[in-house]
Amino acid sequence: MIPTLLTGVIPPVCTPLTPDREVDVPSLLRLVDHLMEAGVHGLFVLGSTSEAAYLTDAQRRVVVETVAGHVEGRLPVLAGVIDMTTPRVLDHVREVTRAGADAVVATAPFYARTHPAEIARHYRLIAAACPVPVVAYDLPAAVHVKLPGDVILDLAAEGALAGLKDSSGDLAAFREVVIGARTRSDITGFSVLTGSELIADAALAVGADGAVPGLANVDPRGYVRLFELCRGGDWELARAEQERLCGLFGMVTVGDPGRMGGSSSALGAFKAALHLRGVIECAATAEPQVALSPEEIERVGKFWAGAGLL
Amino acid sequence: MIPTLLTGVIPPVCTPLTPDREVDVPSLLRLVDHLMEAGVHGLFVLGSTSEAAYLTDAQRRVVVETVAGHVEGRLPVLAGVIDMTTPRVLDHVREVTRAGADAVVATAPFYARTHPAEIARHYRLIAAACPVPVVAYDLPAAVHVKLPGDVILDLAAEGALAGLKDSSGDLAAFREVVIGARTRSDITGFSVLTGSELIADAALAVGADGAVPGLANVDPRGYVRLFELCRGGDWELARAEQERLCGLFGMVTVGDPGRMGGSSSALGAFKAALHLRGVIECAATAEPQVALSPEEIERVGKFWAGAGLL
Amino acid sequence: MIPTLLTGVIPPVCTPLTPDREVDVPSLLRLVDHLMEAGVHGLFVLGSTSEAAYLTDAQRRVVVETVAGHVEGRLPVLAGVIDMTTPRVLDHVREVTRAGADAVVATAPFYARTHPAEIARHYRLIAAACPVPVVAYDLPAAVHVKLPGDVILDLAAEGALAGLKDSSGDLAAFREVVIGARTRSDITGFSVLTGSELIADAALAVGADGAVPGLANVDPRGYVRLFELCRGGDWELARAEQERLCGLFGMVTVGDPGRMGGSSSALGAFKAALHLRGVIECAATAEPQVALSPEEIERVGKFWAGAGLL
Amino acid sequence: MIPTLLTGVIPPVCTPLTPDREVDVPSLLRLVDHLMEAGVHGLFVLGSTSEAAYLTDAQRRVVVETVAGHVEGRLPVLAGVIDMTTPRVLDHVREVTRAGADAVVATAPFYARTHPAEIARHYRLIAAACPVPVVAYDLPAAVHVKLPGDVILDLAAEGALAGLKDSSGDLAAFREVVIGARTRSDITGFSVLTGSELIADAALAVGADGAVPGLANVDPRGYVRLFELCRGGDWELARAEQERLCGLFGMVTVGDPGRMGGSSSALGAFKAALHLRGVIECAATAEPQVALSPEEIERVGKFWAGAGLL
Repeated sequence: MIPTLLTGVIPPVCTPLTPDREVDVPSLLRLVDHLMEAGVHGLFVLGSTSEAAYLTDAQRRVVVETVAGHVEGRLPVLAGVIDMTTPRVLDHVREVTRAGADAVVATAPFYARTHPAEIARHYRLIAAACPVPVVAYDLPAAVHVKLPGDVILDLAAEGALAGLKDSSGDLAAFREVVIGARTRSDITGFSVLTGSELIADAALAVGADGAVPGLANVDPRGYVRLFELCRGGDWELARAEQERLCGLFGMVTVGDPGRMGGSSSALGAFKAALHLRGVIECAATAEPQVALSPEEIERVGKFWAGAGLL
Repeated sequence: MIPTLLTGVIPPVCTPLTPDREVDVPSLLRLVDHLMEAGVHGLFVLGSTSEAAYLTDAQRRVVVETVAGHVEGRLPVLAGVIDMTTPRVLDHVREVTRAGADAVVATAPFYARTHPAEIARHYRLIAAACPVPVVAYDLPAAVHVKLPGDVILDLAAEGALAGLKDSSGDLAAFREVVIGARTRSDITGFSVLTGSELIADAALAVGADGAVPGLANVDPRGYVRLFELCRGGDWELARAEQERLCGLFGMVTVGDPGRMGGSSSALGAFKAALHLRGVIECAATAEPQVALSPEEIERVGKFWAGAGLL
Repeated sequence: MIPTLLTGVIPPVCTPLTPDREVDVPSLLRLVDHLMEAGVHGLFVLGSTSEAAYLTDAQRRVVVETVAGHVEGRLPVLAGVIDMTTPRVLDHVREVTRAGADAVVATAPFYARTHPAEIARHYRLIAAACPVPVVAYDLPAAVHVKLPGDVILDLAAEGALAGLKDSSGDLAAFREVVIGARTRSDITGFSVLTGSELIADAALAVGADGAVPGLANVDPRGYVRLFELCRGGDWELARAEQERLCGLFGMVTVGDPGRMGGSSSALGAFKAALHLRGVIECAATAEPQVALSPEEIERVGKFWAGAGLL
Repeated sequence: MIPTLLTGVIPPVCTPLTPDREVDVPSLLRLVDHLMEAGVHGLFVLGSTSEAAYLTDAQRRVVVETVAGHVEGRLPVLAGVIDMTTPRVLDHVREVTRAGADAVVATAPFYARTHPAEIARHYRLIAAACPVPVVAYDLPAAVHVKLPGDVILDLAAEGALAGLKDSSGDLAAFREVVIGARTRSDITGFSVLTGSELIADAALAVGADGAVPGLANVDPRGYVRLFELCRGGDWELARAEQERLCGLFGMVTVGDPGRMGGSSSALGAFKAALHLRGVIECAATAEPQVALSPEEIERVGKFWAGAGLL
């Protein structure tokens, strides 16, 4: 069961693939165990870090069924319903909730040109049809629109949204939602989560309820420790831990920008690190991403060692 | 059967919907007849003007089966396979070719961050798996990346691409592809199509093989006439016809920008015009688009009358 | 005296520099003669191709005085007044008109965040203070805003603007202004000029009054010939000439994008070609632009030879 | 004399104007006193909040002479040298240092298309010619390029840059520079300042040396208090003070977005508040900005009262 309020570290779970690009279920189960043993507070499948944009509908189904079936309610399982517009998102809502998701995470419409009024309508229609809580996913780098803070807060007040996962990088706008969610009398139980790997401490300091950092696949204990330090008000130690994680995050730049895009490099690095740690069987990323070279993978290992993870 | 080279007017066919947002098959058949009677040279279903981004997989299947089944090879039927990345696009390729599409039209990856090398890989993988010709769809307004001309031409030379549908609005870049396709000795039978409503004459003058204008739903005879005037080198009359169509295109601005986005306004206007002409039963657009008001629809009628279509 | 309507080929005149980056007056005079001998119809100094953004106020003054003094009214001399906002632009207006400019060319405000109402106010204030005609300069690549067509047309109707130099690359929007300027009864004598090197023929075909192509520094005869072919309605020969010029324009890509920006490459190539032709003494571009390497300059020569200019 | 390291609250000083848009020197002196009495640690004139983009060269000179002459070394006075490229910036460097500036603040080149290598060259040339320290100004909203963190750090190591004023809103990128400046052994005495009004506490928490918030014109005591709380590690009280200031900052939205741009609204609100407080004589902003209406100014007063400033 999903708690009233999502809090803590909720990694966006990588989707391990076999060499021929099918979901590698045993590796996925090992990854989930690896995260749960580290003490994470929830799991987010089918997010951007999960390569949801690259998974077929059949593969998405396998992921949610596998993870929800394995977790069996010990932790909340959030599932992305990443698609272009309301009718297509609703199809995913049906699939992921049937497969056991405790909450869904939906972006603004994309590909289609959109408008704040249409974004609000989109979330209202999703909420009306969805049997579990709906979390808004603010990811301008992918959908090319920033979710307006006032729209989010109004949808929270209506009960259409149960939370926000903010991956915009804009901490000032994030704070506006945090303050609004806390001070508006018509809003209760709204969870504000940061998607940042690099300023999770700052987001928690301004009032975030939790964090959804992709790097938590690689170092879940680090982010759990960071969360506990922040919760305890131990900001000095939190900063030190965050800076260690910033160093580790440098791995996302190992890929040659002349040869591949940022997604190939970052997701390739996360998967290479999980492979090096023995968590997943194969580091392949989905098509048409470009694979890291052996030298680039070696550099991933150095970031890992540099962060004291050996 | 698809001809060696796509040429002429190939409207991106609107998808008529019922009031409860299901595909309105009888209206779709009437629309196809309306277009064929006007003398169009091909049909493009599941493009952006078709609201492909808003249609579920089941609805997309209905559209292709309906149109391909009705056309029965009298004209080439192109089908969009609009989705975020290669694995998802390949699922659509299987569906639309099974349903009878003569060619597929695919954008660059979107939502995911991408790179020219990944775009090339994307098209190569699609071409390798696709039993019919593949046309690249350049639509930066939707996918937020411009297809590089040299990548397109190299893919044409390899035989991975059979054509380009350019909706970028950038005629200089379009011309680069037109000239390259004509002058490179390693390229044959590559079709260069403009998606512009407003400068179709100029695109044909610089060497385009055809046009895919959304407004051709509303005035197919106008675009067929324009194509024939251009083909015949009658540039003065072509310009006059094009300017008449520019006036008609003004209908896309009827929607109040404070209340809706550009897609709601433009697609709403096209559908309202088709409804006014008696071609389709209902002017509804897909969710979460906002409906035009009665006053806005009245203004659509004025554009229609102003273009001499009464 | 400036004619009622600016028409024809009006090159944006490069600013030759000495090795220590001062204005090279003898070279500038030779360049002006080179252009006038080719039959151009006007000269535009202190535009983007002139490196106006890189010239100090003192250098700008030298340029206008030199060119206006040399031309002595034989051709209209337009001068850019490129600066961030109205008060600063007005200082330039005073300088360039005192130095003999026949018209000024002004962009929308930049650096400062702006708004259509502020853009209109900007042009009205300039026009009110300027003793010569004002031409709007639409250059979104530099100022990061597109001049709205309706604002331009309204300012034309008020008499605040005498023309538009469009370097947006958006031929559909350009056409909107062309048609508006021709059909609105409240507008007379408004000159619509394209800044494109690559689709000047198309712009003239849709109704442009003239062209302001940077490449005309290198091949002024080519653009004059192109203009005359278009004016005579000889579209086939015009297209051939334009395509030859498109080939020549390829020189702007000689600079290594890993080592320099597009401005260093394009302006460096124009100046290298003028140096190779013996028109200017030194190919230096202004700081902080990066110089082309000898190999890159050699490639400029090949483009030149390839266009039949030897 | 400028201290080794710039720290603390350094307001970007508004430039009061008379009704006919000349610099209002008596009001400027009162504003400087108002800031110094509140305990600020430095003054930044001719920044974006100072409307530097709107001031003529003569007006800029008046501002620096007035402020530097009045301060007489009691505080460091930083001066913006906002212009498009190196040669023009160097002219401003000469002017502001002659007028008494203790440091200059320079953006990346703008209007001109640029490149990281050209940005580095730009700062190196400025530093070589400038008798006082150079601070880089990262303001992508104005110059449309983000200063790359590694370029900044390398320039710091070379001694070309003495500090960074970051107004990008990207706290993760800011932190990269903070950590680099602290941990790289080849960098000493580099000052990292945030330009944010809304997350100054977070920036200080991650290690900023100071803040340059435009809103400090209106409530300098608030930001001085915030800085001292952060310096003292009293993060709870700091957050409360920051949130009070966030509420006050809401005044920047009073202007009707249908009638004016964000600059007119924000700078208009700051000046209206300073006028209401009796600090400046006239709330006028420079052309072509649009004035706030009486109702909008009334709303400024409400924000002021709401923040407990009455």
